[in-house]
Amino acid sequence: MKGFVWLAALLFSQAVAAQHQEDSVFFRKLADDVLSSPVAYENLRVLCKSVGPRLAGSPGMYKAEAWGAEALKAAGADKVWLQECMVPHWERGKEESWYTIGAVGGKAEKNRLDILALGNSVGTNQDGIYLPAILIEDFKDLDAKKDLVKGKIVVYNNIFNPRNLSTGKSYGESGAYRRQGPSLAAKYGAAAVMIRSVSASADNHPHTGTTSYDSTYPKIPAAAIGLKDADKLIGLLRSGKEVKIFYRSEARFHPDAKGHNVIGEITGSEFPDRFITVGGHLDSWDPAEGAHDDGAGCVHSIEVLRALKASGYKPKHTIRIVLFANEENGLRGGNKYAEEAKGKAEKHVFALESDAGGFTPRSFGFTLAKDKLERIRAWVPLFVPYGVYQFSDGGGGADIGPLNRLLGTPLAGLSPDGSRYFDLHHARNDVFEQVNKRELDMGALNMTMLIYMIDKYGLESKN
Amino acid sequence: MKGFVWLAALLFSQAVAAQHQEDSVFFRKLADDVLSSPVAYENLRVLCKSVGPRLAGSPGMYKAEAWGAEALKAAGADKVWLQECMVPHWERGKEESWYTIGAVGGKAEKNRLDILALGNSVGTNQDGIYLPAILIEDFKDLDAKKDLVKGKIVVYNNIFNPRNLSTGKSYGESGAYRRQGPSLAAKYGAAAVMIRSVSASADNHPHTGTTSYDSTYPKIPAAAIGLKDADKLIGLLRSGKEVKIFYRSEARFHPDAKGHNVIGEITGSEFPDRFITVGGHLDSWDPAEGAHDDGAGCVHSIEVLRALKASGYKPKHTIRIVLFANEENGLRGGNKYAEEAKGKAEKHVFALESDAGGFTPRSFGFTLAKDKLERIRAWVPLFVPYGVYQFSDGGGGADIGPLNRLLGTPLAGLSPDGSRYFDLHHARNDVFEQVNKRELDMGALNMTMLIYMIDKYGLESKN
Repeated sequence: MKGFVWLAALLFSQAVAAQHQEDSVFFRKLADDVLSSPVAYENLRVLCKSVGPRLAGSPGMYKAEAWGAEALKAAGADKVWLQECMVPHWERGKEESWYTIGAVGGKAEKNRLDILALGNSVGTNQDGIYLPAILIEDFKDLDAKKDLVKGKIVVYNNIFNPRNLSTGKSYGESGAYRRQGPSLAAKYGAAAVMIRSVSASADNHPHTGTTSYDSTYPKIPAAAIGLKDADKLIGLLRSGKEVKIFYRSEARFHPDAKGHNVIGEITGSEFPDRFITVGGHLDSWDPAEGAHDDGAGCVHSIEVLRALKASGYKPKHTIRIVLFANEENGLRGGNKYAEEAKGKAEKHVFALESDAGGFTPRSFGFTLAKDKLERIRAWVPLFVPYGVYQFSDGGGGADIGPLNRLLGTPLAGLSPDGSRYFDLHHARNDVFEQVNKRELDMGALNMTMLIYMIDKYGLESKN
Repeated sequence: MKGFVWLAALLFSQAVAAQHQEDSVFFRKLADDVLSSPVAYENLRVLCKSVGPRLAGSPGMYKAEAWGAEALKAAGADKVWLQECMVPHWERGKEESWYTIGAVGGKAEKNRLDILALGNSVGTNQDGIYLPAILIEDFKDLDAKKDLVKGKIVVYNNIFNPRNLSTGKSYGESGAYRRQGPSLAAKYGAAAVMIRSVSASADNHPHTGTTSYDSTYPKIPAAAIGLKDADKLIGLLRSGKEVKIFYRSEARFHPDAKGHNVIGEITGSEFPDRFITVGGHLDSWDPAEGAHDDGAGCVHSIEVLRALKASGYKPKHTIRIVLFANEENGLRGGNKYAEEAKGKAEKHVFALESDAGGFTPRSFGFTLAKDKLERIRAWVPLFVPYGVYQFSDGGGGADIGPLNRLLGTPLAGLSPDGSRYFDLHHARNDVFEQVNKRELDMGALNMTMLIYMIDKYGLESKN
């Protein structure tokens, strides 16, 4: 039977190839353009180096919005506008941390900790806190030591598991301590929380990211420690040393600010009222340039528009590029976009997000009915030469999630290779120099190819 | 028909899955070990930082040999030895280049060129040369301008084509100017050659690599220019400016030196006299640490031995890890290994090389009879979760090539993602920091998996 199956598979792939020969030729034309164009990479350079950090509510946010509108116009959008939404305005302020070993009072040596307050965290008082540290291995250990944490600074040893084949899975598991760790420790009276950075990087840069307070318990200050410092500190605690940590943070919220989703579109030639959304998020954490997270997704999305325009292809549907506001610490942009679409009863046929970095693409993950996913998997062989070899079940993006929840819109997310992402995610080394032009371009190219196929054939098609 | 084919393919893949469940479990066990082990990455750190550059004949070569033997012993080899071979000993010495625009003599401003002499190139005389430059776009242009190049320094505009889907193809095309460019220009009386670095990198580091002189023509000095400098220089020449280039190089050959292939093996339990070779090359270019080229291949290969040993699996065949001498500018190690194997009438059933960097793995390329390749493609689904999704037709490695030519041994080469390789290949930025631990480990893991399958099932097997 084996021989027959291979033969049948071969015949089938030849049939698909013949059917899609025109598409294959078009892909090659798109590739010639995208791989030799400086635009996506130069867009990213300007976003990283001239705009820089752009957390919601910060001055960088407004510079980024202006940049995005200009870049979309330059890419050839028929129409560019800003969609207003109120965004949280959290500010880090100054922060400092060190620890002492054994000795009491001010005479002990101060060992500096490289830390970043978690996003949306409260700060300490003006003088800071200086309290005994307690090592907590995991949430089970926290429950076991619940009588010991009161008035102390909880240090979580949340290891980023290197054995998981998906780094995203390790991020989810280790990141639980960033998201829920502070409130779970506050429940037992902890004064503050320090986590290992949610990363497996080889350096000491701390990695920030939002925490979520449970309003049942007091909000306590929380920060992430660089991994080398965390290893040292945890080693001391494990060996039974008495360690006191000093932590001072000015982190605080200002009143909400007026932010915007930046939107550009190519009006559809057949169905101008049916929308295909392609986006990334424009905001980034404050300590870095947000090159991979998510400058890459923004320039990917703009490149989809530019490449489609440059190719001469006339999309049937309206293709909307959306640079979403405030993904990192609020998701107000994504929510606003979906709410307004629902309010206007817009028909959104598909949405694609790039928010996993500008690395070499491997697959797309879909939130789509299984039979439809199975049908469009026939397109995969067309993508393989360009590096995408899987259409996986499950995927999308935080910013487009509300479109699916409110309108049932099918989603996809670009899945680049995840090996390096969490080495720089939310850390000060997420800079332009970490992005390789070819890897960035390959992501944009595969996104353009997918949007073209969905625009041309739809998700119902048996083609 | 389509539905039937998908069903048949599904049934087939389920049958394969059932048959290989034990292998799948073993792969997971290997992954748990390799992905959480510090060994491969630490081996690379020591090779890069304590040994450093290790071109054939240099003091670094001997340090690297000692390092390799120790690393193989530490990995658990049953036997470790050095196989002697004479290697060329080319030395760069000091080198300098700059150019002047328009003005004659010593008054013009000196614009520094960041260059590296091509490997195996002759040097200039002690005072250097200072001669008019001529721009040559390609070999066709050289023929057209054959009467104009005499006594000049030919500057080739060998662009690294960004449109090719394989960066290796662009390397081959652009690299023709490095390999044959000097002699083809010498044929028409050129005094020296400068090429664009064979790279598409965004920085100005020049990329060296061997040139091959045609003994019919005079050997003339040749160097590669960093891409930013090359762009400037070529822009000036294209605009019609008179440009004179100064070039001084002490490059020269010393007498051949005694080098070694470093070999470690696990003796086969069933067929101790049938060999499976796994290797990379130990030498590296002089300006860098040779982290990706080919430190990665060396530590990949050592990790295959370590992981197999640690797993408790007893290979049927003798698994030989070979750290080859002198790949870069002579291939004496690879030739010696195959010649001795032939002389002893050894049976070499398979050889695998890693010499394309420590990047995230995508495929293996095979030099293997088509029917056998087709059969082992049934294993691909087992590799997909670990990142390898193709067994391609064609591939191997420079060092194991002689085994195929002299003994007919089937070959394979690890093909990692090629996006970043030529950004640092043969350049001073090919350093340890450019290697990501997880990407490195994933390469070693997939190599170990392949060697296990071939050892267990052979290449004839229908399993």
